[in-house]
Amino acid sequence: MRPIFAKSWTSFSPLARGVGRGRWQVSRLSSTISPVAAPSTKSRLSSARVLVVGAVFFGVGATLWAGEAFYLAAEEAKGEPSYVPVNKATPGVPGADPAYPKTMTINGEELPVATCFGSDMADINKPRLVILGSGWGATSILKHTQDLDANGYYTVVLSPTNYFLFTPLLPEATTGTTECRSLIESIRKICFRSRAHYCEAAAQDVHFDLKMVEVIGVDGRHFLVPYDKLVIGVGAMNNTFGVPGVRENARFLKDIQDARYLRHKLMTNFETAALPTTSEEERKRLLSFVIAGGGPTGVEYAAELYDFLHEDLMKYFPDLTSSDVSVTIVQSADHILNTFSEAISLYAEERFKKHNINVVTNARVTKVDPGVLTYRNKNAKAGEVDTFEIPFGICLWSTGIGLRDFTKRLVDKIDMQKNKRAIEVDSRLRMKGVEGVYALGDCATIENPNMMEIVKQSFVETGKDSLDYDTFQSVIASIVDRFPQTAMHLEKLQNLFEKYDLDKNRRLDMTEIAVLVDETNKKLTSLPATAQVARQQGEYMAKKLNKLAWTPSAEGSMAVENTLKPFNYKHLGSFSYVGGDSAVIDLGGGRTGGGFGAFLLWRGAYLAKQVSLRTRVLLALDWTKRMFGRYDCSSPRS
Amino acid sequence: MRPIFAKSWTSFSPLARGVGRGRWQVSRLSSTISPVAAPSTKSRLSSARVLVVGAVFFGVGATLWAGEAFYLAAEEAKGEPSYVPVNKATPGVPGADPAYPKTMTINGEELPVATCFGSDMADINKPRLVILGSGWGATSILKHTQDLDANGYYTVVLSPTNYFLFTPLLPEATTGTTECRSLIESIRKICFRSRAHYCEAAAQDVHFDLKMVEVIGVDGRHFLVPYDKLVIGVGAMNNTFGVPGVRENARFLKDIQDARYLRHKLMTNFETAALPTTSEEERKRLLSFVIAGGGPTGVEYAAELYDFLHEDLMKYFPDLTSSDVSVTIVQSADHILNTFSEAISLYAEERFKKHNINVVTNARVTKVDPGVLTYRNKNAKAGEVDTFEIPFGICLWSTGIGLRDFTKRLVDKIDMQKNKRAIEVDSRLRMKGVEGVYALGDCATIENPNMMEIVKQSFVETGKDSLDYDTFQSVIASIVDRFPQTAMHLEKLQNLFEKYDLDKNRRLDMTEIAVLVDETNKKLTSLPATAQVARQQGEYMAKKLNKLAWTPSAEGSMAVENTLKPFNYKHLGSFSYVGGDSAVIDLGGGRTGGGFGAFLLWRGAYLAKQVSLRTRVLLALDWTKRMFGRYDCSSPRS
Repeated sequence: MRPIFAKSWTSFSPLARGVGRGRWQVSRLSSTISPVAAPSTKSRLSSARVLVVGAVFFGVGATLWAGEAFYLAAEEAKGEPSYVPVNKATPGVPGADPAYPKTMTINGEELPVATCFGSDMADINKPRLVILGSGWGATSILKHTQDLDANGYYTVVLSPTNYFLFTPLLPEATTGTTECRSLIESIRKICFRSRAHYCEAAAQDVHFDLKMVEVIGVDGRHFLVPYDKLVIGVGAMNNTFGVPGVRENARFLKDIQDARYLRHKLMTNFETAALPTTSEEERKRLLSFVIAGGGPTGVEYAAELYDFLHEDLMKYFPDLTSSDVSVTIVQSADHILNTFSEAISLYAEERFKKHNINVVTNARVTKVDPGVLTYRNKNAKAGEVDTFEIPFGICLWSTGIGLRDFTKRLVDKIDMQKNKRAIEVDSRLRMKGVEGVYALGDCATIENPNMMEIVKQSFVETGKDSLDYDTFQSVIASIVDRFPQTAMHLEKLQNLFEKYDLDKNRRLDMTEIAVLVDETNKKLTSLPATAQVARQQGEYMAKKLNKLAWTPSAEGSMAVENTLKPFNYKHLGSFSYVGGDSAVIDLGGGRTGGGFGAFLLWRGAYLAKQVSLRTRVLLALDWTKRMFGRYDCSSPRS
Repeated sequence: MRPIFAKSWTSFSPLARGVGRGRWQVSRLSSTISPVAAPSTKSRLSSARVLVVGAVFFGVGATLWAGEAFYLAAEEAKGEPSYVPVNKATPGVPGADPAYPKTMTINGEELPVATCFGSDMADINKPRLVILGSGWGATSILKHTQDLDANGYYTVVLSPTNYFLFTPLLPEATTGTTECRSLIESIRKICFRSRAHYCEAAAQDVHFDLKMVEVIGVDGRHFLVPYDKLVIGVGAMNNTFGVPGVRENARFLKDIQDARYLRHKLMTNFETAALPTTSEEERKRLLSFVIAGGGPTGVEYAAELYDFLHEDLMKYFPDLTSSDVSVTIVQSADHILNTFSEAISLYAEERFKKHNINVVTNARVTKVDPGVLTYRNKNAKAGEVDTFEIPFGICLWSTGIGLRDFTKRLVDKIDMQKNKRAIEVDSRLRMKGVEGVYALGDCATIENPNMMEIVKQSFVETGKDSLDYDTFQSVIASIVDRFPQTAMHLEKLQNLFEKYDLDKNRRLDMTEIAVLVDETNKKLTSLPATAQVARQQGEYMAKKLNKLAWTPSAEGSMAVENTLKPFNYKHLGSFSYVGGDSAVIDLGGGRTGGGFGAFLLWRGAYLAKQVSLRTRVLLALDWTKRMFGRYDCSSPRS
């Protein structure tokens, strides 16, 4: 972000300042409105409207947290929850709950069974709810089930990281637009509010038959944690797609350590490039930033680099010229941001062109050597040179996600788990093939319906070989009810009926319906692996857990679960920052926008979605700081 | 620091809030005034006075930076300096200045000679000023010589860390009271303001005969940098005093990496202690914090730990009880803070007793094993057990400083360098035995006068065997003029004269003066290795460099230097934070104070001494945050 008030600061007359700011906004506005190559102007929200909406949203977000500040501070000042512990046990003693053995033998090894986390044993006999992970899904559950244990659970959260990380802003932390600490919130603090117990341990395995989770504590020792209900939200890991050298020579951007490493590496590369002993070739290599993957993470990293390079860095590094620096995105698809509308891809590419950020599309990375990335042009004609090398100082790898070892272990155990890329759950987030286990977020995928089976069933039930409109309506309704993800493809029933009634006999026979089902199946995709999906799933799980808390028996639970609505994802919009105080927004259904308005909307939305007052205030301060200040180009190691 | 407004937040009536705060301050005030075991009440500033002064100072400091904010923002907005580069060279090409060879052979190796740092070559033919280091001394020079090169130098700053670190607040960063980034400022930013060139390289050697500094760049390559004037401000390193196991098993607190490590280690130890598989003995060991050295660093670390442990930590770790945690200071002298007045030592010890911080005095650490520190009681009587072991989870080693390898290499080269613990400089900060080289800060020590020699000289000059009052006065005046550090011991001449005129003949003979000289010598100590000393020395050097810039010839320089006053250290007071919103202050001459007032004074002073607006604002924000908020008990790895 540019120091937007910089120009007006030279004059101290408040009037002059007002004018200066006004002028700047007008020029900004006009650049926002300027048409970009979009396939249809109708399909885009007018930029001016986005600007207004963005400004309003940002303003509301900013004042909201001020208000919430008072509320939460008052809440926190109340201190301890108002219940009294019944009896105290020596902390952490295995065997605190006599319903479980003190140790169990797993694969020939005797492991302790931990039943007590924390000295308060008032809830120890309640059903045990174990949550694996501390990311978006887990945190969303905890946030939406305040006083979880008072509702009937002894809740234990197990995760190897004792903080929640606001992942969408990670690219900002790589240059220092936001500080790392502003993006993380202590999971113990979040647990405290919902009376959950936390333990820093990584999930190793789940012994479904014993209803035990095997974990490895931060000290490396294995132990078992029993559960009655288990929620798996361990996330995913970066996928190298088998490209050799990625792990050794490129860097992912998934955790706060990655952001810190990238920030330190960026500055060290600049310092090394500025040494009088560095040759021109080496300098260009050190200052070449290559990003494999043109999704939001890659695009935002490129955008942050652009901001960083074009604001202060050249000023503080007089030894370097901007021609020494290059930023390149290598994308395998036709366009960057290819999960967004095409209008957005084109807008972002246009901007990047203006910013001298190279975008290489249709390129498949074949290997990553130390300092050199090799790719193959997928569209090269026979006889043409198709393999290219790009020397780099930093290579960011952000091409997609893959299964964690833990998740793979679980999927391999259960026969009903057919999808080998994630834990398959039904539309109520229940892991398929086991009882009492739920999964959400990046480690889970919701099964798509076998619609043909349902349709066949209804043919059998009605005993006819074709369906009239009313029956058709009820069959589709039952599908939509069980699989909400089909809703958007199956709405406007009248139209559908007419479209697929090929012989126009006011009835749909099996062949006609088969065409409908086939086309709908093609449109059905898995939910994207985003924070938004995990957060909504967490909220859904929280509501369900709150309801289930009052139905202790297994049969009762099942009955209650089946009456609850299945999970239905509501897409609230995707954002991506593209540099120079501009963002793009895709609200779905072709409604898109880009520019400064979208930028305000983006920041406002992220401010609103913070899990705690602390990070909200810190983030607002970081952004305010950037508005006036400059980047901090020091590079303390680790 | 406690969340001081917490209580008042429960009520939202502004009146109630005011009362709440008032009550809190009153109770605070009374605890401040309560007498502590001080040897003499006269020797202490009244605590109420300290409170008032502290509050005023803090208020002034806090408003000052707001004012400076506007000024500096306006300054920065002006952008580039207003001079035009004369000619541009390819950056970093060795041989840019034809007055120097492109390479030189040192110890059989051909090393490049770097004469050009940055593309602007307008100043390349000016005298070359090289500053080694980026700590208090170097930064103080740069801050007090704005537009250094416009004054006649081509200035190059060489340091392996590209940031200035506000060292006195490092203990606060170990728990997160202040964030690490709030304590550092980019050295490139500081250099930019004074038009100095920076290069990330560590000093390896100085070839005095060639007037070349040999450095190692951040990429590990050696090169040479020529100088006309050289200022050495490389600081010192931690001293283990030969105790085995310190480097392997204890941690120093000297750089930002140490603070980050200690913060992460603290939280990880708490997480490990909270695991259900951790035994009670192991838990107690993990939560035992041992500090070797009772100086300000050790005391402040203990104070920070106390604040941290007693505010939130026990709340968020319900598995642990406060009896699991212990903090121990092992001090070799009779008292902690033994460089402060005794009143302060006693006050601090009293406070620590109240806070359950163990203070072991007269203890010499004999070895540090993994997890166990061994010490010997120096006062143990014959036959008594004199060796004790303390198990620890974290051991901080802060007992004193020692020579860096680089400094040692220089001292060993020059015959006139007799002091083997630092670079000896004269009272004008000139390194003894070489021309054009200065040293300051922790790596330097100012020689003490050979007073007997001066006195003998004056006996020879006057041709008499005793001095009358007038001659005595002029001899002492000449000593004080050359060695300002003697001033405080040689003031009140009339009294001195009468005291040492043992035979009361109104004249001092050689024997009588020998007694005076001997007693004064005993009182003369080296300046302490503090930020304050280095900062004042930097300011002194800056003034000198500005004056010398207009006298190019070596003889002229010498003449100007001799007319300049020698460096005279003014002690502005020593602070140490002791926990629970209390600090102690020693203004020298027996004027001491402690409590909340001193705490405000302490923070106000540190706010005022920040090198940049950025860190000042960040620090103020950190402290404000702590006043309302809680500690962030997450522990991201490096």
